[in-house]
Amino acid sequence: MALYLRTKKLDIEAGDDLVVLLNNKQAEQEGIKEGQKITIFYHQQVIYATVHQTDTEMETGELGMYSELWQTYDIPSGEILRVEIPERPDSIDYIKKKLLGYRLNKNEIYTITKDISNRRIKDIEVAYFMSSFFSPGFNDEEVVNIAEGMAAAGDIIDFTEGKKGTHVVDKHSIGGIAGKGVTPILVPIVSATGLLIPNTSTRAITSPAGTSDILETVMPVAFEDGEVQQIVKKENACMIWGGSLKLAPADDVMISVERSLHAQSFNKLVASIVAKKIAMGINHVLIDIPYGKGAKVKDAEEANKLGEKFVEIFEKVDIDCFPFKRLIKGTDGLGIGPNLEMRDVLRVLERDELRPKFLEESALQMAGKVIEMGKKAAPGKGYEMARSILESGKALEKFWAIGKTQGATKIIKSEEIKPGEYIKEVVADFDGKISFVDNKMIVRIARALGTPFIKQAGIYFHKTLGDNVKKGDRLMTLYSVGNERVEDGYSIVDFKKLYNIT
Amino acid sequence: MALYLRTKKLDIEAGDDLVVLLNNKQAEQEGIKEGQKITIFYHQQVIYATVHQTDTEMETGELGMYSELWQTYDIPSGEILRVEIPERPDSIDYIKKKLLGYRLNKNEIYTITKDISNRRIKDIEVAYFMSSFFSPGFNDEEVVNIAEGMAAAGDIIDFTEGKKGTHVVDKHSIGGIAGKGVTPILVPIVSATGLLIPNTSTRAITSPAGTSDILETVMPVAFEDGEVQQIVKKENACMIWGGSLKLAPADDVMISVERSLHAQSFNKLVASIVAKKIAMGINHVLIDIPYGKGAKVKDAEEANKLGEKFVEIFEKVDIDCFPFKRLIKGTDGLGIGPNLEMRDVLRVLERDELRPKFLEESALQMAGKVIEMGKKAAPGKGYEMARSILESGKALEKFWAIGKTQGATKIIKSEEIKPGEYIKEVVADFDGKISFVDNKMIVRIARALGTPFIKQAGIYFHKTLGDNVKKGDRLMTLYSVGNERVEDGYSIVDFKKLYNIT
Repeated sequence: MALYLRTKKLDIEAGDDLVVLLNNKQAEQEGIKEGQKITIFYHQQVIYATVHQTDTEMETGELGMYSELWQTYDIPSGEILRVEIPERPDSIDYIKKKLLGYRLNKNEIYTITKDISNRRIKDIEVAYFMSSFFSPGFNDEEVVNIAEGMAAAGDIIDFTEGKKGTHVVDKHSIGGIAGKGVTPILVPIVSATGLLIPNTSTRAITSPAGTSDILETVMPVAFEDGEVQQIVKKENACMIWGGSLKLAPADDVMISVERSLHAQSFNKLVASIVAKKIAMGINHVLIDIPYGKGAKVKDAEEANKLGEKFVEIFEKVDIDCFPFKRLIKGTDGLGIGPNLEMRDVLRVLERDELRPKFLEESALQMAGKVIEMGKKAAPGKGYEMARSILESGKALEKFWAIGKTQGATKIIKSEEIKPGEYIKEVVADFDGKISFVDNKMIVRIARALGTPFIKQAGIYFHKTLGDNVKKGDRLMTLYSVGNERVEDGYSIVDFKKLYNIT
Repeated sequence: MALYLRTKKLDIEAGDDLVVLLNNKQAEQEGIKEGQKITIFYHQQVIYATVHQTDTEMETGELGMYSELWQTYDIPSGEILRVEIPERPDSIDYIKKKLLGYRLNKNEIYTITKDISNRRIKDIEVAYFMSSFFSPGFNDEEVVNIAEGMAAAGDIIDFTEGKKGTHVVDKHSIGGIAGKGVTPILVPIVSATGLLIPNTSTRAITSPAGTSDILETVMPVAFEDGEVQQIVKKENACMIWGGSLKLAPADDVMISVERSLHAQSFNKLVASIVAKKIAMGINHVLIDIPYGKGAKVKDAEEANKLGEKFVEIFEKVDIDCFPFKRLIKGTDGLGIGPNLEMRDVLRVLERDELRPKFLEESALQMAGKVIEMGKKAAPGKGYEMARSILESGKALEKFWAIGKTQGATKIIKSEEIKPGEYIKEVVADFDGKISFVDNKMIVRIARALGTPFIKQAGIYFHKTLGDNVKKGDRLMTLYSVGNERVEDGYSIVDFKKLYNIT
């Protein structure tokens, strides 16, 4: 059956789903039920949407569109569109097959990732698929197919202008640590060597700030495919938000389904990252795997396993991967929150004496390794090259060159970046040496202060890992834009959970 | 935080979910996002609903209610209700724990079943739980806790008026076979012996008609708890639709989530049935397990396993269970579809010569066994008692006694029941003996004819299992209420898939 319905924009946001509203009688006539998916044809696009029904809000012949639908596909009111009831998607049978413990072949997996990408299957069905990452699980070949299938369902960008053998490098962290300063220091250093490094980052999901959130305090980060090509052509680098590109779009749907469970399996984490690197045409990637108490990865053994998994899966898609495993006992940087983290980054690039040394060291080690992977330095020589680029001021220069190409209107000095005006000092009631700072507690405090949405909110450490503390010492300053927020953050501070003191 | 919002009824049906519409600005102020759950307090009830947002359709201070919400809880417009953002439910952590392969204890399972029952957790999260029935799976103790937890979250009815030791019997089929005539024949026979048999049945989900659908052609089947107590007090039996009672309400949510996958694990099937029997205070139950090609259970081995599973789980909740396993090679009865199945039932009860003998035999065997379980006949003597009750006309009398107490306005004769006026004859183009009739094909044809929604639609077999057929013989008559429907059904008929001929 095919129906022809007249579109009507509605002002209702349903969340992640695309929803249409149909007249009850018409729906009944066509055998359509609430909650069912229908197919809408608009220009070249096939759109799958969930049906809600009404007696009075829609006339027969009308197709009410919730905000996400008409916004995503830019559909005006008054268009006559063809609407069909889709056949039951094969992907549902494949998901069932997996739940029953069978292996899925490439075709089956590509069908699933495609149907998730274009929202042909419902969130409930995606949840069944996501749960199968935990149990019964996927083998390496399946994970490779999932990653490739996710990439294939979206745009794949080639930055080499067709030149085979061009090194395209990147660095990616599995996350879980507060402080995202490494990437904005590493990208300018690496690109200063001439290497292609089209970096995409994320906004915060569970952390106080994503790399995109902190970059955005000083430069635009949201671009479309064509714009990114121009930026990278000019700067042989970019530092952009991956979410604005159509890279592996299945991942956005999967993440929204995983969010409610607050859990992601390692295979899913690997598949997502691999998919996005395929889509960006990366051929060498350093994967930052922080591990330790409070991190995503608990110990060295788990970090080794995950690192091997990354190497194996990346190898199967012809991407050279270096797992950079590091034991984490605190945060990356002294500032936490978008503005405070960007101030740390600029202090490192500007060679300011207040710069966080631990963050600088991490960034240099990773940058050095990436430079070696891109063959701009001999093995073991990358670190020195990275350090000399940083110390010479070339990294600072490159940071702002990329920033300006991305649309930053002016160069901002670290001292110009201001945290929130409402502050609260956290003072020690103990003596001893800080031998551990818990990232999870820091995240909770920063969230209460208002990060990542309030850019000026955050934490600045006066004492951190390795420091000796005396009773009465200032440990941290909490910043936000209102007194209640600052008090909220302060009320969560609990030294017993936050520190190990030796 | 607690908000006080003024309710406003909306005319939008979202399907299975309860949805509220909030003004965007207000939602943002309170940190509420689209797709999130909020808690609404109305009289003694705590209601969980999913948030949609709008700029213009709602004012600040208003709480738009989609139809399912105000209908289910009977909430008028203009009420000022307290609304809160719920804490993250513990059940999500327990579901995650299960997906990671751990066993769940009683408290964890009860928390999950309760949160599913009252819709505190989202359908996506329910899907994660349902997928864990497939993998990693639940052990018997967990299945018992799921069944008891499902029952405990709803109403539990006691029909014994507190008399300990009273036998309360029932029969339940795992389903999957076209033709639902057994129960409406069995209940009057068993209740004629004086046994308490408060039977609840379902409407069709995937079959041409559920037992409730066929009963409803001659008597009301939807009642509330108190009404059922009255019916059973008078008739020591009832034949009602379980869906109108609040028995194990988690099951309705689970079924709606399972529906999209078109699959149910055995443990889930067992848990659902056990939960509902606990809720109805049953202490002896016969479980009909049809098996064979095209059925839910493939072979005798699987039927034995499932039967043992039922016995074990029922034993742990102190219910005596008899698994009635039977090899199925065709349908139960000669008519398929609500009216045609009820005509079969009445023909058996009326001792009409056109009555389907196979259906009668199945009903008598099961009724006999149930009578023995309820100690009204010695082992091996139940069948004879059942047959004499049927042949004496007492079963017919009891059927209508129950029917009248349930509100039937008149006694209907089998000959008064008319199938649809549009017909199509299916004629054999082969010779041979029918040694198998495929239930799945029959279901597809019946569905195309319009069952279960069109009561007059259906199939009547002139030749069936065991019959010898000659080219040109009339095999089936297809009935519906329009020519297109009849042709639709006819177009699906495929003798190769429908029959085995020997």
